[in-house]
Amino acid sequence: MGHGPYPNIPIGGGVSPQVQQWFRAVDKDQSGFITAAELKGALVNAQGQSFSDTACNLMIGMFDKDRTGTINVEEFDKLYTYVNQWLTVFKTYDVDQSGHIEEQELSKAMSQMGFRFTPEFINFLIKRSDPKDGRVSVDQFIVLCVQIQRFTEAFRVRDTQQNGTVTIAFEDFLNVALSCSI
Amino acid sequence: MGHGPYPNIPIGGGVSPQVQQWFRAVDKDQSGFITAAELKGALVNAQGQSFSDTACNLMIGMFDKDRTGTINVEEFDKLYTYVNQWLTVFKTYDVDQSGHIEEQELSKAMSQMGFRFTPEFINFLIKRSDPKDGRVSVDQFIVLCVQIQRFTEAFRVRDTQQNGTVTIAFEDFLNVALSCSI
Ligand SMILES: [Ca+2]
Ligand SMILES: [Ca+2]
Repeated sequence: MGHGPYPNIPIGGGVSPQVQQWFRAVDKDQSGFITAAELKGALVNAQGQSFSDTACNLMIGMFDKDRTGTINVEEFDKLYTYVNQWLTVFKTYDVDQSGHIEEQELSKAMSQMGFRFTPEFINFLIKRSDPKDGRVSVDQFIVLCVQIQRFTEAFRVRDTQQNGTVTIAFEDFLNVALSCSI
Repeated sequence: MGHGPYPNIPIGGGVSPQVQQWFRAVDKDQSGFITAAELKGALVNAQGQSFSDTACNLMIGMFDKDRTGTINVEEFDKLYTYVNQWLTVFKTYDVDQSGHIEEQELSKAMSQMGFRFTPEFINFLIKRSDPKDGRVSVDQFIVLCVQIQRFTEAFRVRDTQQNGTVTIAFEDFLNVALSCSI
């Protein structure tokens, strides 16, 4: 039923039919909500592998405002946009279109994002994502960037002299570490 | 075949028949290796819920020395001992035997482990594990304690004056944060 002169907007009315259709496809049990497991079943990287549990939990957590562990169609719409933005970023930095970000590409990506990391640290990031082949898939890239963003923000607010170092007490250190961990 | 006077020890020979039997039960596809998913299917907390993905990934990661994402029967034997030790610790601190560590119990547990945390920080830890009911299940307790252990160790080696504060540069901060994150 409408309310006076206002149109009657059904649930999901602000979401395009295309995204609504994808939502229904991902929502395997047709519950009207998507879990991390359902999301995992829908997202694949360039190698045809499912996104990691970490990546799916991270993204559900970012858009699941009421902390039920699930997202509805409007939240899914935002997640969909978010993932697509990351895909665009990833493709920009995957210069050789290998489907992975290799060490040199990551170095350039971090540099273009404004970070001044040593080659050793870039190597650490690569090894952390993929100890064997030394390269970063798109889901690993999203997780890595979100982690770095969070820790950078926590550091920035404590770096009151803006000189790239902070002095931090034990409990605050643990607080940051645990708050920003995924 | 034996080697001279030495007995021929078959694979898994050092593992008790009971643990070998449990290994075979957990190893659903009988591959001879246990994945985090298989472990998840076998571990339940006091509420009959599966251990979280985070807890299962953490524990496989701790005992999976060759980083294949799986553990063999000897590694499983160590994991089995490890989980049982944590269960014992958990039961010690779950004074009212509710199957959860509530806020007061966590405060006492941390204090007995040698930490001097403020009530606000204890409350933060509780809320982080369970925003709704404010209590910690056994798998959440293991994850929490392992995280705190790792970050404490990283802090300790940097706290050269042993005064409970460290001065840390941005890249080293990120390094610690990312290395110790689960
Ligand atoms: Ca590439
Ligand atoms: Ca209790």
